[in-house]
Amino acid sequence: MFDRIDHVGVAVADLKSAVALLSGTFGMTLTHRETVESQGVEAVLLDVGDSHVELLAPTGEDTPIGRFLARKGPGMHHVAYQVADIDAALAKLTQEGVRLIDAAPRPGLRGSRVAFLHPAACGGVLTELVEPAH
Amino acid sequence: MFDRIDHVGVAVADLKSAVALLSGTFGMTLTHRETVESQGVEAVLLDVGDSHVELLAPTGEDTPIGRFLARKGPGMHHVAYQVADIDAALAKLTQEGVRLIDAAPRPGLRGSRVAFLHPAACGGVLTELVEPAH
Repeated sequence: MFDRIDHVGVAVADLKSAVALLSGTFGMTLTHRETVESQGVEAVLLDVGDSHVELLAPTGEDTPIGRFLARKGPGMHHVAYQVADIDAALAKLTQEGVRLIDAAPRPGLRGSRVAFLHPAACGGVLTELVEPAH
Repeated sequence: MFDRIDHVGVAVADLKSAVALLSGTFGMTLTHRETVESQGVEAVLLDVGDSHVELLAPTGEDTPIGRFLARKGPGMHHVAYQVADIDAALAKLTQEGVRLIDAAPRPGLRGSRVAFLHPAACGGVLTELVEPAH
């Protein structure tokens, strides 16, 4: 069902330092930067092989990433798997009784369609499905 | 420096359930199972694309993963990047002042050589380098 690890999502308090580490020290290529006002997040994507790291910085304290940082501090936030057909994947997971956060796909970065599965259904791991833009 | 995401490491309390979710529901192929007594961990690898998920179950409470579970509960534990030459990578990171947990590589799963970077140097993310067996 899953084609590959699409990305690892990392919550950061200091976006500039995190970008410097990953693009400078680690040598990853920064490929995308996007602020999603509805989610209160500034996202930066850095390529590594066919996958990427998604840095997530909050636009304010009362946002999902702002609350995550206040509760847990900076660090790994979620893992995302790439699927060819997110509607089919969600239908299969629903049929198997997996608890979803998003029952239907919603718009993701770069024209993708995404949906989150509930961490309680995934061994404590917040898990995202990504169908890239075609 | 990094060729790809080698794996995402996940700390699990219930290995059987986690394997059932990933191999059954998610359709990943279980490719390896290894108990590392020196680390007090039973590891299970499940392929997804060119990467894998590494499930980590403690062999007892007083082990690194046992203590992680007691402190944080099950969930994402680390991210690992594949490198072609781990000695060169560690030399470069040392030169750039990145704080390491392992100054020199140690044996990993399936004959690989691995080293961990300190999460404090990586924005709260426990980061592993993996040079696969040749």
